[in-house]
Amino acid sequence: MTISILPVKGVGEITPGTDLARVLTDAMEGDDAIALSDGDILVVTQKIVSKAEGRYCDLRHIVPSPEAEELAAVTRKDPRLVEMILRESEAVVRSAPFVLITRHRLGMVMANAGIDQSNLGPGGEDRILLLPLDPDASAEGIRDTVYRRTGQSVAVVISDSFGRPWRNGVVNVAIGAAGLASIVDERGKADRNGRILGVTQVALADAVASAAGLIMGEAAEGIPAAIVRGVALHSAHASPARALLRPAAEDLFR
Amino acid sequence: MTISILPVKGVGEITPGTDLARVLTDAMEGDDAIALSDGDILVVTQKIVSKAEGRYCDLRHIVPSPEAEELAAVTRKDPRLVEMILRESEAVVRSAPFVLITRHRLGMVMANAGIDQSNLGPGGEDRILLLPLDPDASAEGIRDTVYRRTGQSVAVVISDSFGRPWRNGVVNVAIGAAGLASIVDERGKADRNGRILGVTQVALADAVASAAGLIMGEAAEGIPAAIVRGVALHSAHASPARALLRPAAEDLFR
Repeated sequence: MTISILPVKGVGEITPGTDLARVLTDAMEGDDAIALSDGDILVVTQKIVSKAEGRYCDLRHIVPSPEAEELAAVTRKDPRLVEMILRESEAVVRSAPFVLITRHRLGMVMANAGIDQSNLGPGGEDRILLLPLDPDASAEGIRDTVYRRTGQSVAVVISDSFGRPWRNGVVNVAIGAAGLASIVDERGKADRNGRILGVTQVALADAVASAAGLIMGEAAEGIPAAIVRGVALHSAHASPARALLRPAAEDLFR
Repeated sequence: MTISILPVKGVGEITPGTDLARVLTDAMEGDDAIALSDGDILVVTQKIVSKAEGRYCDLRHIVPSPEAEELAAVTRKDPRLVEMILRESEAVVRSAPFVLITRHRLGMVMANAGIDQSNLGPGGEDRILLLPLDPDASAEGIRDTVYRRTGQSVAVVISDSFGRPWRNGVVNVAIGAAGLASIVDERGKADRNGRILGVTQVALADAVASAAGLIMGEAAEGIPAAIVRGVALHSAHASPARALLRPAAEDLFR
C-alpha cells in the first residue's frame, strides 16, 4: 500500500499535430523504471496537450473590442490578450490591476482564461497558447491510444496550475480526466448533517494533479508528464474533470 | 527521482495529552517499509493533532450570543456550534443555508472554522473538536521530537480538508508546517510580467498535503499520518503554513 509518482522523461518538444499519446508511450517504453501497468494514472500538463492540438494564436491578427480595451486599461494587460481572454470566457469574475479572473467557456474560474505566453518559442510575446478545446475528450483520446499501443488500461489526468482566492501560490488541478472518478462520493462515510461545505465529496483528480505537480513542477518545462501509481481509481464511478466544476448557480461568490 | 507516499499504520486512538510525535515514531519504528530518513515529510491530519492537544469543547456548556442565534437561523446550524465558530473566527465571509464560511483567527478562510463533530466518541453531537491553537508550532514540536527520538531531520505538515469556492469536492491543504518551504518562490523561472495570478509562487506544502490525502483519505479514520518521500524541501527557505495565507487586504473577494 504505497503510492509512487514517477517522472516521464525524454518527451522532447511538442508541435501541432504531434500524436501526444504516441510520444508519451514511446518515452515510457524507453524507461524501465516506469513499466506502465493497469491502474496507473498518466498525468499530462495542459501545455503539451494544447501544443499538440495546435491551440496557438498570433496576437498580431487580433483586433480588440471596446470591452477588451476597457478591461485592458483596468488590468494593465495587452488589449489583444484581453480580447482573447474574453473570447475564451463566459463571464468576467474579477478585474483589478494585473488581475483578470473569468469563468472559462469550459466552466473553470481561473486567471487569464488559462492562456499561456511563456516559453512558446518563435513569435515571442505575440504568440499565445489557449486551453485544449475539450480537455476531457483529450484525456479520453490519450487513454484510448495508450491502451491500443500498450494493452494497459490507464487513467489520464490533464493538469494545469491555478491560483486560489484566499491562499498564496498555485497548485495543480485537473482540467481533463478519463478512466477515474474525478469526484469520489464519500457520502455515508462522513457526517450526514450537511454541516461542512462539500465534506462528503473528495476531489480525487485534483489531488492526483497536485501530487504529480510535486515532480513536474521542479523541472518546469523538463517534465511535462508523470505516472501516479497505487491510487484507487474508483473507475466504476468514473467521471470527467468537468464534474469538479461547481455550477455557476451554486457559486457562493458571484 | 521518484516520490513515494507511505501510510503510517497502527497509530491507534489519540487522547488529550498523548505525546503524538512519540506515538507516530513508535508506529513507524514498527514498520520496516517506512525506515524514516532525513528529508522525509511526515504529514499528520489536523484531527489527531487537535485530539492530542485536547481541543475538545462540550456544547452543553456554551451559551450562544444573539449574533450566533441570528446566524444559526440563516445557516440552519446549532446556535451553540455557531457561537463556537464565531469565537474561533475573525470575520464571517459568507453565510447561507448549511454554509458558514469565516476567516479563522489563524487566517484561513474555511467552512465552520474547521470545527469537527464526527467520530469524536462519547458526547455525540455535543462534543466538538477545534483546530490546534497554533498548528505551525505543533508541526515544529512534532519535528523536534521526531529528531530527538530518531536522529532523522524530517519536515512536518499538518493537513486538513478544505472546500473551494468554484470547485466541487474537498482537497487537503496544509494548516501547519515545519522544515520545508510552504511556498516555493519560482520567480525568474516563469514569466516576469505579473500576468497570471500567483504563478511565480508554488504552494508546496498544500501539494504535499493533497498528495498525502491520496493515501490517508481512503481509510478515513484509519490512516491519520503518512510519509511523503523524495520531495525537494527547499529547507534553506523554510516557511510556515501561515505563509500560504493571502492577507485579508489582498483578498479579491471581500
